[in-house]
Amino acid sequence: MAEPIRFYFDVISPYAYLAFRALPAIAARHGRAIELEPILFAALLDHHGQKGPAEIPAKRAYLMKDVVRKAHALGVSPVAPPPSHPFSPLLALRAILAVEGDARQRAADALFSAVWGGGPGVETPTVVEARLTEAGLDGAAIVEQTKDARIKARLRDGTARAIEAGVFGVPTMLVEGELFFGVDSLPFLEQFLEGRDPVSAEDVARWATLPASASRI
Amino acid sequence: MAEPIRFYFDVISPYAYLAFRALPAIAARHGRAIELEPILFAALLDHHGQKGPAEIPAKRAYLMKDVVRKAHALGVSPVAPPPSHPFSPLLALRAILAVEGDARQRAADALFSAVWGGGPGVETPTVVEARLTEAGLDGAAIVEQTKDARIKARLRDGTARAIEAGVFGVPTMLVEGELFFGVDSLPFLEQFLEGRDPVSAEDVARWATLPASASRI
Repeated sequence: MAEPIRFYFDVISPYAYLAFRALPAIAARHGRAIELEPILFAALLDHHGQKGPAEIPAKRAYLMKDVVRKAHALGVSPVAPPPSHPFSPLLALRAILAVEGDARQRAADALFSAVWGGGPGVETPTVVEARLTEAGLDGAAIVEQTKDARIKARLRDGTARAIEAGVFGVPTMLVEGELFFGVDSLPFLEQFLEGRDPVSAEDVARWATLPASASRI
Repeated sequence: MAEPIRFYFDVISPYAYLAFRALPAIAARHGRAIELEPILFAALLDHHGQKGPAEIPAKRAYLMKDVVRKAHALGVSPVAPPPSHPFSPLLALRAILAVEGDARQRAADALFSAVWGGGPGVETPTVVEARLTEAGLDGAAIVEQTKDARIKARLRDGTARAIEAGVFGVPTMLVEGELFFGVDSLPFLEQFLEGRDPVSAEDVARWATLPASASRI
């Protein structure tokens, strides 16, 4: 069995939503399973001392247009902003983590739709429970589990492990030690799975050992 | 005559190099001229309190792979890192600004090739002069002009005007008031020029007025 594709995401990211919708067809074409890895994007930004795209006014103004264009190009529909943004994705991420096995895909699907598919968002236990229940899951039990310290720790630990693996943003796809960042990298992931990645070891080595001759810092 | 496409770039960015190579074909297909607008990427980052992709170690490690893959997809060749990175792009940006009219394209071409096309970089007046001279320009006179306070001011002012226009990164293409950021947005620019931009005024308005319900700050 081929190694699965690990999919690192946060429901706060519309680009993660687009990749979540587009990835299954790629994975299926190459006989790969998808392992969903919910992580807290804000913790990645904190770790790297970086701002998110929605935290820079000029970039924020551009972001939704870019998302609409990318959704159109990928054939992902519907795409619409949630009732508020930014919002806390913690409840949704913990709920997705609380669901094990194949059902995690359904939980993520339901909550991503609630955020970026024209739904009511994922900010209250009531709406999260209702969305999970509509998806055929035990919404009440899952929401109860999100309060468990072990689930909270699992999200923190999963985020820390993602950072250790070199993840610096969402969405990121990881397979056979190779990271692919952003919804724009999906064609490169597919090329890699087909054994046609144009990157050579020399490219990587040369760049890695390059000296800096100027710095802003 | 249709409005030209303004191309905001810094030679420090490999993505700007790729877009610089790919944009002329798009512009030609739509009867558009290109106006080259050299700006200082570091000043944009400072303004937005943001780090550049090469300033975050995990992102830097990924960057050159991504550039090689994008160059391959766009058919841009050669692409190779310069002798050092980051480096100061000031001399090159001022030299490009010192050249007016159609010849500016040749100056930018020569200096972009010196950085990302397997050349010797653009860090010394000697190499910049030689590259411009090889491109059929008066390299010595141009390098002399880079010392002129008016040229230095023009780069600062051009960067400030770009920020005012909403530019938050390089490369950015601006036409008819619409910004397209990044080499990945070239297909969206072309779609826009063809009158097929899928973004609606409603999308923009709804996102612009969205409340925040959480913040990291």
